[in-house]
Amino acid sequence: MRYSLLTHLECSRCHRHWDSGKLQNVCPDCQSPLLARYDLPAARAELQRESIAARPRGMNRWHELLPVQTPENVVTLGEGDTPLLNLPHLGAAIGLSRLMLKDESLNPTGTFKARGQAAAISRAKELGAQQVIIPTAGNAGGAMAAYASRAGLVARVYMPADTPHSNMQECRAVGAGVVLVEGLISDAARAVSEVVRQGGWFDVSTFKEPYRLEGKKVMGYELAEAFAWDLPDVIIYPAGGGMGLVAIWKAFAELEELGWLNGPNRPRMVAVQAAGCAPVVRAFEAGEMTNTFWENAGTIASGLRVPKSYGDRLMMETLYQSHGTAVAVSDEQIRAAQLQLGQSEGIFAAPEGAATVAALPVLLERGWLKNDERVVLLNTGTGLKYLP
Amino acid sequence: MRYSLLTHLECSRCHRHWDSGKLQNVCPDCQSPLLARYDLPAARAELQRESIAARPRGMNRWHELLPVQTPENVVTLGEGDTPLLNLPHLGAAIGLSRLMLKDESLNPTGTFKARGQAAAISRAKELGAQQVIIPTAGNAGGAMAAYASRAGLVARVYMPADTPHSNMQECRAVGAGVVLVEGLISDAARAVSEVVRQGGWFDVSTFKEPYRLEGKKVMGYELAEAFAWDLPDVIIYPAGGGMGLVAIWKAFAELEELGWLNGPNRPRMVAVQAAGCAPVVRAFEAGEMTNTFWENAGTIASGLRVPKSYGDRLMMETLYQSHGTAVAVSDEQIRAAQLQLGQSEGIFAAPEGAATVAALPVLLERGWLKNDERVVLLNTGTGLKYLP
Repeated sequence: MRYSLLTHLECSRCHRHWDSGKLQNVCPDCQSPLLARYDLPAARAELQRESIAARPRGMNRWHELLPVQTPENVVTLGEGDTPLLNLPHLGAAIGLSRLMLKDESLNPTGTFKARGQAAAISRAKELGAQQVIIPTAGNAGGAMAAYASRAGLVARVYMPADTPHSNMQECRAVGAGVVLVEGLISDAARAVSEVVRQGGWFDVSTFKEPYRLEGKKVMGYELAEAFAWDLPDVIIYPAGGGMGLVAIWKAFAELEELGWLNGPNRPRMVAVQAAGCAPVVRAFEAGEMTNTFWENAGTIASGLRVPKSYGDRLMMETLYQSHGTAVAVSDEQIRAAQLQLGQSEGIFAAPEGAATVAALPVLLERGWLKNDERVVLLNTGTGLKYLP
Repeated sequence: MRYSLLTHLECSRCHRHWDSGKLQNVCPDCQSPLLARYDLPAARAELQRESIAARPRGMNRWHELLPVQTPENVVTLGEGDTPLLNLPHLGAAIGLSRLMLKDESLNPTGTFKARGQAAAISRAKELGAQQVIIPTAGNAGGAMAAYASRAGLVARVYMPADTPHSNMQECRAVGAGVVLVEGLISDAARAVSEVVRQGGWFDVSTFKEPYRLEGKKVMGYELAEAFAWDLPDVIIYPAGGGMGLVAIWKAFAELEELGWLNGPNRPRMVAVQAAGCAPVVRAFEAGEMTNTFWENAGTIASGLRVPKSYGDRLMMETLYQSHGTAVAVSDEQIRAAQLQLGQSEGIFAAPEGAATVAALPVLLERGWLKNDERVVLLNTGTGLKYLP
């Protein structure tokens, strides 16, 4: 069997196929995000889920279902295989008997962004990129910069001038050039687009190249494995760009096609946003398939300060298909939830991760969650990156 | 086979045996650190190293060789199984062809202190402790506070007033009481001793209870496993309290007794300290078995600011027995090494971890290291906890 079973790229909107053998950003026809496709029938015939479990720890255990073609091109800092933790104290306090948290803060650079960048930078290097560039609301920049140095690529990061100081210092500490931009991540994205247009730089923005999503989807694989291939009832995810939400859902579809899932259970996917920037919640409540730009976005959860994701359509599809929902929580609720999680379970989560805790009482009150459902929270990063 | 093969405690100095079935701090006779002992012949007869590899990830894979008696008492946040990374770019720049780094920053709370506290707090809870207390130069406090909350214990942390602010905030974020003390960790330790004397609090200071060392020793087990049971040539460790250094050495002795090591290789153990606080280096150069208190200790690597470790004798024994050495590096060298590691490999290490990088040119210049030796650096934590 080949090291990677990647076959082609498919446009998420017009479904046209594109060559996965060269550097690609979005669909050249309709500018929508591209998705990586694999020879899943071959994997179904030849690959056993148990053999993946027996490999050494880390994201690359799943290499047949990831894009990198040869082991020499895998750029790694030890990402993946984060723990799934029971939350008995918090669950009892809130009224959920089977509450769990996947703690993505145990990744390199302290956040789940490491997964996406590990895949994207590995593949970009394999396909010949030499300089990589990204706009970031915070943590993606640190991860991108780290993996770029690890790969021997030149990295440049554009971030809003009011991004937490630790994010800038982290990028510089691992050798990236940092450019501060007045405004939001959407302004940083505009600045990056101009540089990219002039040539020489490969853009690894959220949803603007196909492989960050592939790294993120491994969260879904790991969850399936941790639940003995019988998926949980609900997954609660803090949605800024929303790539992880889409990626986990893609993972479940692939696992189903592989025949690896026991039982018919497919989780309801929940997007949590900050009240100060909730374009997904607004669209969900209106039953819309796309988002409109959220004016004057503001929240302490800098990763949630995304006024309109480039993958908005994919996020909305995930919520509707999974019979999920979307919830907005205030910064005050996030702060209180962060402290509650820390004091009850010893986990110092990022505000984005804490937002998923804040969503629980809201969902219980609505009657949307049952007390004995298996609920998984995604903590996307460590609280250490947000200290004043 | 029992879940844990713990049999008794043994004084590291007078070798008297003590009951492991109740809360113990140091040897009641001679006040030296106690070491946990196991029924290794039983393990040798009944336990296979391959069966440990097949268990779910994390420190507790090694439970027969750890102190907790029943699975219900294991308090975990997902610690252990950190990656061992090749450092090809840095190695080429420095002149070492087989340079590696074990990245302990991928533990809960961002440092290797999580391992020790996971074991100590689990066992303290199992033996009935309800309130735990510790003096800390920084990271041990955060880890202890996190595991105490996870276990449902009350935690209090004493730290020097000039400890990095992030450490204090982290302790509070996970529910610990924080007391600031003018002076160094030795002054904080004195304050803790007074509280402990009044009763009701269990002291989990470095080397003053026997089980933190047991958690730390798993670093040695994991290294042996990662090297296919043929140990590396040199391990370079940033020594403050020095518990990890002693613990890794203890792990190798146990593995030898278990018959699990292939080949006779035993690593030379290197202690790296900061020039502003180098009691171990001073003692090593004088050929002494104990340390004298280092006056006016100062370094940016707060974890190395330990004027005299309670385990000084065990540290010195490890260095001599392993044919190791001790090296002091300046804060300027640490800063430069931190940036070099970040820029060349994408790893943003704590200053303590960076100190091991700074030691490499010194050891090469002395002719103490050969260019093709298998050298492992211990990065004890993330640089994120040291941002100004």
